[in-house]
Amino acid sequence: MYRPRTFRTLRSFCYSFTRFSSTAIATELKSAPAIQILRTKAQVRKWRAQQIMKGNSVGFVPTMGALHDGHMSLVRSSLRMNDKTLVSIFVNPSQFAPNEDLASYPRGFDADIAMLAEMRYLPSAAPSRVASPESSSSLSSSAVAETQVDAVFAPTVEEMYPSGIPLEVEAQRGAFVTVEGLSSQLEGAMRPQFFRGVATVITKFLNIIQPERVYFGQKDVQQTVVVKRLVSDLCYGCVVIVVPTTRAANGLALSSRNAYLTDQVREDAAVIYRGLQHAVDTYRTETDAKKIIAAVVDSITEKFAAEDIEYVCVNDLETLEELENVHPLKGAILSLAVRVPNSFGTKTRLIDNVIL
Amino acid sequence: MYRPRTFRTLRSFCYSFTRFSSTAIATELKSAPAIQILRTKAQVRKWRAQQIMKGNSVGFVPTMGALHDGHMSLVRSSLRMNDKTLVSIFVNPSQFAPNEDLASYPRGFDADIAMLAEMRYLPSAAPSRVASPESSSSLSSSAVAETQVDAVFAPTVEEMYPSGIPLEVEAQRGAFVTVEGLSSQLEGAMRPQFFRGVATVITKFLNIIQPERVYFGQKDVQQTVVVKRLVSDLCYGCVVIVVPTTRAANGLALSSRNAYLTDQVREDAAVIYRGLQHAVDTYRTETDAKKIIAAVVDSITEKFAAEDIEYVCVNDLETLEELENVHPLKGAILSLAVRVPNSFGTKTRLIDNVIL
Repeated sequence: MYRPRTFRTLRSFCYSFTRFSSTAIATELKSAPAIQILRTKAQVRKWRAQQIMKGNSVGFVPTMGALHDGHMSLVRSSLRMNDKTLVSIFVNPSQFAPNEDLASYPRGFDADIAMLAEMRYLPSAAPSRVASPESSSSLSSSAVAETQVDAVFAPTVEEMYPSGIPLEVEAQRGAFVTVEGLSSQLEGAMRPQFFRGVATVITKFLNIIQPERVYFGQKDVQQTVVVKRLVSDLCYGCVVIVVPTTRAANGLALSSRNAYLTDQVREDAAVIYRGLQHAVDTYRTETDAKKIIAAVVDSITEKFAAEDIEYVCVNDLETLEELENVHPLKGAILSLAVRVPNSFGTKTRLIDNVIL
Repeated sequence: MYRPRTFRTLRSFCYSFTRFSSTAIATELKSAPAIQILRTKAQVRKWRAQQIMKGNSVGFVPTMGALHDGHMSLVRSSLRMNDKTLVSIFVNPSQFAPNEDLASYPRGFDADIAMLAEMRYLPSAAPSRVASPESSSSLSSSAVAETQVDAVFAPTVEEMYPSGIPLEVEAQRGAFVTVEGLSSQLEGAMRPQFFRGVATVITKFLNIIQPERVYFGQKDVQQTVVVKRLVSDLCYGCVVIVVPTTRAANGLALSSRNAYLTDQVREDAAVIYRGLQHAVDTYRTETDAKKIIAAVVDSITEKFAAEDIEYVCVNDLETLEELENVHPLKGAILSLAVRVPNSFGTKTRLIDNVIL
């Protein structure tokens, strides 16, 4: 799961979504990907129109691929709450700076599709149907009761950026979305064009897919704040659902970029979440942001150099205003970024956060 | 039509759309506004969902009110091409600079609704139905065959800008849309935040209304270029329809801001379109932009001071790049802005253009 794989853009997948009722075929179905792979906006619009006609609600999970259990947690939430789920796989150039890792960002389309195809969600009402006496075959019945991802949208860069998309902001032409006031601090301070890229591509996806619900992970907390504001300000009718961070056994937040790390560093990185937990403990008796932050820094510096901590910061949940004191009734976001050694001999940025 | 009217924001209109079949009531209908007035995003979404369920296509005509025959030309195009037409009336604060005329912009909601309610479009197929022998009353039949505006969306500023909208760009927070490369020349050079405001509010409207087609006047030519790019880049599924400029008898392009002018200046302003026509004549034998522009300037300066001409410019139709020579196979936009004396003793900007 952690190894980068080659991205085969030219290979075209087009499995049609079919439902089988016989036991033998239903068993076969469990190992074969029964997911529609959509490559163009026109294909997605057609799929969407079909869902409208059938009265199906649509959940949308945007991803950049290199899927892991964190993404699967978003998918599971969408399967639970919607009739149909569409997952996008698109490494969005406009959120990378020229010096960042667009070219080396982990890609593994085949493995991603396989992982999504294996993903099943059994609605809580289903067990009684599986054991139902009127059902001649519990396996077949179970295969029908389960829901799974209906479609993957994996467009080309040209499909998403008809005006082209050079990485240098000064050279970019065409329509872009910015969320003023929430995009220049924290991650935005380190990556000045990042949230403009995120907001722009999410706007495009919302316009193409028109989902009822869109899913984001709590790990990218500033992204959730930016997207919520975008959805509200640009008057979209959909709901933004934030799903808790999925963590490795040692507490490390799952991230596609963890693929860059050695096993040793992945183990050492346990100090990050441990630090955040210490901070939560500190917050029980302490509202001074400096002391809360110190608890995090102390833990991280057990394994990593202090100068590799890009920021540890306490911010308002909606305005992202930096706080000196946490108001106990309002709470706050405690978030951080740390640069840790990777297997290429350079550094990889890890981010994490907790809500106080 | 040219006099500013007071805007009664608090008065709530809510006529329901009903179809009558008896001759007497159909005649009555002709004078009464049978238009739904929608005030909230939720009302529009409900209206839109009804159209989807009925399989009705929706045409959208965005306006800032103070309607004139130019707007009616857009409405007529929409009635002709769509099952249902929605007109928005919203004076968009984000496209006004602090020193511009947001407060004094002409508003006349009652007159606007009355004008829209009187607007009827008789489909070309209809005449045979009107004269049809199986129809017991040609008047009643005609009332049914005619189409008219179905709904007006007239939201408050708070409804459209949930994060608020101070006029100073530096103080603005929340999501905004910019169209890079097309927003800083011509009108954008004089009004640096104008197209950001236009692009942002159009994005909001498209998200709320989800029309099949959206209508703009050729008079605001740069706006049509910006919106076309926005619709393409942000991956909207709708089509942008550009409707030719409607002109007064003397050639003056209709504009809500013409309400600011005295009769004398409105008469003098005939030199503007006359200049554009001279330029079109010049272009028959001349591709040098300087000479084409000179034809316009010579005409305008017959009545107005040269220093009141803000710009006369020849630009590429898609990129808006300024051209020194017009390529006969590509054509160009010839556009201008002139400041003319108004009845307040200050100056009003008039814009106009022709396609070469």
